[in-house]
Amino acid sequence: MSTIVNREKTEFLYQQVAQLIREMKAQNTLQAGQKLPSLRNMAAKLNVSIPTVKQAYLELEQQGLIEAKSKSGYFLKAMDSQYDKPKRRRLSSQPIAVNKQSLIEQVYEAIHRKGVIPFGIANPIAACSTDKALARTMRRVMTMSGHQGINYGAMDGFAPLKKQLIYRYLDVGIGVDFDELIITNGAQEALAIALQCVAKPGDVIAIESPTYFGIIELIENLGLKAIEIPICSEKGIWLEDLSNALQQHTITACVFSTALNNPVGSLMPEQNRADLVALLESHDVVLIEDDVYGDLYFNGPRGKPAQYYSKKGLVISCASFSKTAAPSYRIGWLIAGRYAQKALGLKRAFSCSSPLLNQWALSEFLASGDYDRNLVKLRQILRSNKERMIHFVLQHFPAGTCVSDPQGGCVLWVEFPAGIDATALFHLALMHNISITPGSMFSASNKYQRCVRLSYGLPWRDEVERALIKLGELAASLQMKKQSAT
Amino acid sequence: MSTIVNREKTEFLYQQVAQLIREMKAQNTLQAGQKLPSLRNMAAKLNVSIPTVKQAYLELEQQGLIEAKSKSGYFLKAMDSQYDKPKRRRLSSQPIAVNKQSLIEQVYEAIHRKGVIPFGIANPIAACSTDKALARTMRRVMTMSGHQGINYGAMDGFAPLKKQLIYRYLDVGIGVDFDELIITNGAQEALAIALQCVAKPGDVIAIESPTYFGIIELIENLGLKAIEIPICSEKGIWLEDLSNALQQHTITACVFSTALNNPVGSLMPEQNRADLVALLESHDVVLIEDDVYGDLYFNGPRGKPAQYYSKKGLVISCASFSKTAAPSYRIGWLIAGRYAQKALGLKRAFSCSSPLLNQWALSEFLASGDYDRNLVKLRQILRSNKERMIHFVLQHFPAGTCVSDPQGGCVLWVEFPAGIDATALFHLALMHNISITPGSMFSASNKYQRCVRLSYGLPWRDEVERALIKLGELAASLQMKKQSAT
Repeated sequence: MSTIVNREKTEFLYQQVAQLIREMKAQNTLQAGQKLPSLRNMAAKLNVSIPTVKQAYLELEQQGLIEAKSKSGYFLKAMDSQYDKPKRRRLSSQPIAVNKQSLIEQVYEAIHRKGVIPFGIANPIAACSTDKALARTMRRVMTMSGHQGINYGAMDGFAPLKKQLIYRYLDVGIGVDFDELIITNGAQEALAIALQCVAKPGDVIAIESPTYFGIIELIENLGLKAIEIPICSEKGIWLEDLSNALQQHTITACVFSTALNNPVGSLMPEQNRADLVALLESHDVVLIEDDVYGDLYFNGPRGKPAQYYSKKGLVISCASFSKTAAPSYRIGWLIAGRYAQKALGLKRAFSCSSPLLNQWALSEFLASGDYDRNLVKLRQILRSNKERMIHFVLQHFPAGTCVSDPQGGCVLWVEFPAGIDATALFHLALMHNISITPGSMFSASNKYQRCVRLSYGLPWRDEVERALIKLGELAASLQMKKQSAT
Repeated sequence: MSTIVNREKTEFLYQQVAQLIREMKAQNTLQAGQKLPSLRNMAAKLNVSIPTVKQAYLELEQQGLIEAKSKSGYFLKAMDSQYDKPKRRRLSSQPIAVNKQSLIEQVYEAIHRKGVIPFGIANPIAACSTDKALARTMRRVMTMSGHQGINYGAMDGFAPLKKQLIYRYLDVGIGVDFDELIITNGAQEALAIALQCVAKPGDVIAIESPTYFGIIELIENLGLKAIEIPICSEKGIWLEDLSNALQQHTITACVFSTALNNPVGSLMPEQNRADLVALLESHDVVLIEDDVYGDLYFNGPRGKPAQYYSKKGLVISCASFSKTAAPSYRIGWLIAGRYAQKALGLKRAFSCSSPLLNQWALSEFLASGDYDRNLVKLRQILRSNKERMIHFVLQHFPAGTCVSDPQGGCVLWVEFPAGIDATALFHLALMHNISITPGSMFSASNKYQRCVRLSYGLPWRDEVERALIKLGELAASLQMKKQSAT
């Protein structure tokens, strides 16, 4: 069989393959997020050569109908053409004091209710649970730890866990000193420590808009001010807007996620990361990187954390195992660099050491390779879930709804057309046992009233699909109500 | 046998019993902290009646030679007469900014060195480890928790643990609402949250002097000012000094331990606690109670936490399981009362929820009764260790050394005579693999240069005794050096 294919013939064969895939999709024998027939099977089915099918798949991928996953094959995407994504906003560039508390409490209360579909919590591990593997590990740790296991641990963290993390940073080209890495109670404490290392009450902190509401709450509670810098779902922070803000205001630090912003899922291109760090360091502004989703990218190798590009040591990295192994363990860390001593003092003053057995189990979990094995599976499931969810949103949500195209992580950012208030939808959906996160929580200034964040970090079941359809109906009903009122 | 004893004959018999005990002590067949022969054995030995021996024991107890422990019998005390205890200090009553960091780091570094005798860490559980019982409990929890065990827990804590704690407060007459109790990452986080609920940078906080250095560090890192109120080892805080300070300064809050101050081990009499709370509430000043040692009293039933006496709701209680079950679990709590909503917001902003499996295991540990069973044993061992340590300090430390008489907990407060610098002794002792805590760490203004805190929360072994003897020699050598230099 010749591997050289005639261009014209290929065009025809490609149409055949594309046609078959569209038919399978229409007949629901192939759904968004599902795997396509293998090259071999498809070739046999259409009686063409494997290279012909491969060529056809490649072209379909370029057209956005399907996508390749390394070592897994080809998968059907949610839509066969580009769809609308939420646009970058022009934001007023004034620093503001913030208050988010009440709505956040209601959202948290909602996700802990029994029988609720938890689109409102970003908990990717729920999609591919580590519980059995971690329970095995914890049992082993209980056996080997003895009295040491209940004793006070070191303030900066359990040394074997710190070493495992340092190895991982080496893999992406970052050399981390043992003393500058401090284990914390989740990334939230790492962020709290990082901010207090560099800022004092009244200082201005630049944040992404939209951004994770935990960052906004932290800024509020530390008496800091926030200035919002717009991001787009493709490339993350807009450097031009950041540059303008740096010229207009005395900004002390930025809290950004260069990898997989929550809620948008944007991934900054490498060059942009390098430019971002260079821009900030030229102004002597600290970059606090929230890297909790960094390991949950979908495409290609893991990008470089911002720290990689730092020349002046003004980058502090914060991350955790809450999105990749065990949220309940409450283990995160920060790489504090030149602020290490100050950071350790703050850690000791605010909560002493972090839970030892949890650190011990995680260090074993990393060392055994179980962590990475689970990550591979988790990424595949999340990627498939993402496609399915986009499919359902675009099919069942009101016309004019825009959806982000996250490059990793576990959340979609959905922007409704005019007339749909996301906070009203939150309350309405909860009456139907569906939790969502209203968009205004992701802004220090109550923007994104028409947006919601939906998590696809859950086991995909029929009831998830039914809940998405219901959510679309509820949104439409709000729109109708608004229209009839005006 | 008659139970009525002739007074004169009793005097004679009492002398006999006292004489025998002194001989046993001199011959080292009975050591400080050890149990005396039972009434029956002693009666047989001296050929007197049991009531006679009982009467003799009672009189010896009144003289401070021996002490009764409920359900355990009589024990030899460290000394057969009152010994000198560190005196209350007159303190300058000016609020001060504080900086303790460097020495604290050295002390922490020292306790984690291998082969070091850890007098420098207050870790009572080391004396009577819960590790086996907790490992059993944790294994059970791993089996029953499944995916829920790795999932995010509620921000305010694991409900069954909160309920167990509420039952315990009911036992001492305090009704706690479910919503006002918040589980934290150890008592240190509870204190940090409590302080931030009521104080802003620059505010003045009254602390005991001496007090636990973690409180001083917290005040430093929150940008608060400290005013030191003297305590005595018998009765705790001096209300008269506190009252003067309240008249001279605008004090926002106090952080006190009415039960078992660290490092002195004082226990405020109930009336003083009531008076303390009344005094503070009459000035609308908040009392933050650090109650981590509350369950480690030696004599009689547990006292009432300050909250019991509150009429205006200005008392916030902070405590943890670090001194009574498992320091490595990092589980504490606060009862925030009227500040509950603010406290929950701070908890969420600074570290989200606390480790779930640890809370789960502790709730089972409490519910099973294992916690209380271990406490009974732990208190007995600590009490015996205390007597032994006082005995060794008084025998082997330089003449003029004063020692506190803690009413519970796991630490002794030792004041050396002039010429002995405790920080120098800390460095010298460490060269001999002995860690101690220098006194200046317990003051915001570098007082207590001649004091050290020694922990008897450890398994009592020969090497502990040798280390105490060595410590006495090292202190004497410092004194000699000082004398020959002047």
